[in-house]
Amino acid sequence: MFNKPSFPNHVKIVEVGPRDGLQNEAITIDTETKVELINRLSATGLPQIEVTSFVRQETIPQLADAEQVYKSITKKPETTYSALVPNEHGMLRALSVGTQEIAVFTAASETFNQKNIHCSIKESIQRFHKVLELAKDNNIKVRAYISCALGCPYEGKVNVEKVVNIAKTLHELDCYEISLGDTIGVGTAVQAQRLFAETMEVVPIEKIAIHFHDTRGQALTNIYACLELGASIIDASVAGLGGCNFAPGASGNVATEDVVYMLRGLNIDTGIDITSLINTGNFISDKLQHRNTSRVAQAGISPVQQ
Amino acid sequence: MFNKPSFPNHVKIVEVGPRDGLQNEAITIDTETKVELINRLSATGLPQIEVTSFVRQETIPQLADAEQVYKSITKKPETTYSALVPNEHGMLRALSVGTQEIAVFTAASETFNQKNIHCSIKESIQRFHKVLELAKDNNIKVRAYISCALGCPYEGKVNVEKVVNIAKTLHELDCYEISLGDTIGVGTAVQAQRLFAETMEVVPIEKIAIHFHDTRGQALTNIYACLELGASIIDASVAGLGGCNFAPGASGNVATEDVVYMLRGLNIDTGIDITSLINTGNFISDKLQHRNTSRVAQAGISPVQQ
Repeated sequence: MFNKPSFPNHVKIVEVGPRDGLQNEAITIDTETKVELINRLSATGLPQIEVTSFVRQETIPQLADAEQVYKSITKKPETTYSALVPNEHGMLRALSVGTQEIAVFTAASETFNQKNIHCSIKESIQRFHKVLELAKDNNIKVRAYISCALGCPYEGKVNVEKVVNIAKTLHELDCYEISLGDTIGVGTAVQAQRLFAETMEVVPIEKIAIHFHDTRGQALTNIYACLELGASIIDASVAGLGGCNFAPGASGNVATEDVVYMLRGLNIDTGIDITSLINTGNFISDKLQHRNTSRVAQAGISPVQQ
Repeated sequence: MFNKPSFPNHVKIVEVGPRDGLQNEAITIDTETKVELINRLSATGLPQIEVTSFVRQETIPQLADAEQVYKSITKKPETTYSALVPNEHGMLRALSVGTQEIAVFTAASETFNQKNIHCSIKESIQRFHKVLELAKDNNIKVRAYISCALGCPYEGKVNVEKVVNIAKTLHELDCYEISLGDTIGVGTAVQAQRLFAETMEVVPIEKIAIHFHDTRGQALTNIYACLELGASIIDASVAGLGGCNFAPGASGNVATEDVVYMLRGLNIDTGIDITSLINTGNFISDKLQHRNTSRVAQAGISPVQQ
């Protein structure tokens, strides 16, 4: 007889489309539309939305209206609205609008870190200290991203131990959630599973998020392989917003709709209304004047009404 | 410590692009280009290629040149060149050009069968008898497809037992390989795994192929879930040729490149040169004047030279 694999009963989806997605789109979306997008996303039942990034306007002009967006969105009590913060200055901006939760970021590749934020991995973590201190003083939870966790656009292979050591350091710095990012969507399932398994040895499983890009079509399978180990926090981007910085025209973030469709099939609860999610993805894709890259949105949930 | 899951060492890929792919493309490809496509595909190391279909020209004008294509391709001794055969007349056409192996097809949904081939499932299997007799007399191996194995565009859910019973019947009729088709790409991983597991109870595992469409982005994950049970025969279509009949603009067959990329990552041998496969997919996509829908082809194998 068939023994159904066992998975977590519930998975938390962290919606990163408004930040990680929109920052990589060619068209800059106006503030009002961003606010509508985020309000629609929270109405789908998404438990957490990364709203924006408090980076310098010159670096990411698409998110120059960070304060305005954060202030204007409707804050549902059951939803967490977080924002990316690169440094102390960004943290002060985030605090000025009452940001509930922040995220910091580094990478598991020295070359990537140098090209992305002009410092070594060690230096990037040192820069966190002031941010983390301000967060602690203000009772704000901190999430941390590790980019290039399954490969680097410049260095190629990335050592698992390197990623795991960074995760351990971030956990020791009191980051409440560590998100392992396959930034360039190059990893495959057993590699993802190995990374997750080895990270579990130094960070409690309920603090490990997976952030997989679908650039080579592997994201859902990599997620599935980690679900088998008990992963229960998944980052995704509605309509697959963002594309890939390193392969123009290719996919970036895995589409939230496709993840939720899979989870439904596995009887894993997310609390998200998939139809409302698809409609929201279509809304923002229209504004960006490109196709919704979610496969589920393209095809519909089902050939017959369910 | 991480215990790597165990998979088959080797997987046979059955390339269905020239048949299942091209029959659903808007542009009809000329005979010479089809022959070049198939010769290029066999040069990649693919062990089996479904070359064409001996159906009525009026039904599928894209494959009206079946005899000419089959006769003109270079037959490598290590490659199997098969063709789809719908009935006795098609079988006689296949025999006239020395077809090495044939495939017959039915569906697990009565409504789908009625709409597709205007008969019940039972009648469709009865029609096989004459074909199978001719195959036996000519020492030709017969593969069998079961469409709608994970869902039907008209009926929705399809009962697993129904699929398994049809697989059992086809196995008893001496079909040497039974291909389970998620024709509309609606299934998810545990559903695929359950179907595979239950089919294994009535058909030896080495005779079960999986034929999953990527319409909702689930194909690779569904394949992965079946690999975990020991599946070792996978149908795929270079460049994702074919699209989806039931959701215009959506994906159909899973792209061979994406499957091979995943299998490489799992250290499963296919004997296929992925670079040569990507080049072949780009060649036929150019001729069809549309984008190569393989994610791996879009992004490249790796961000750094390997």
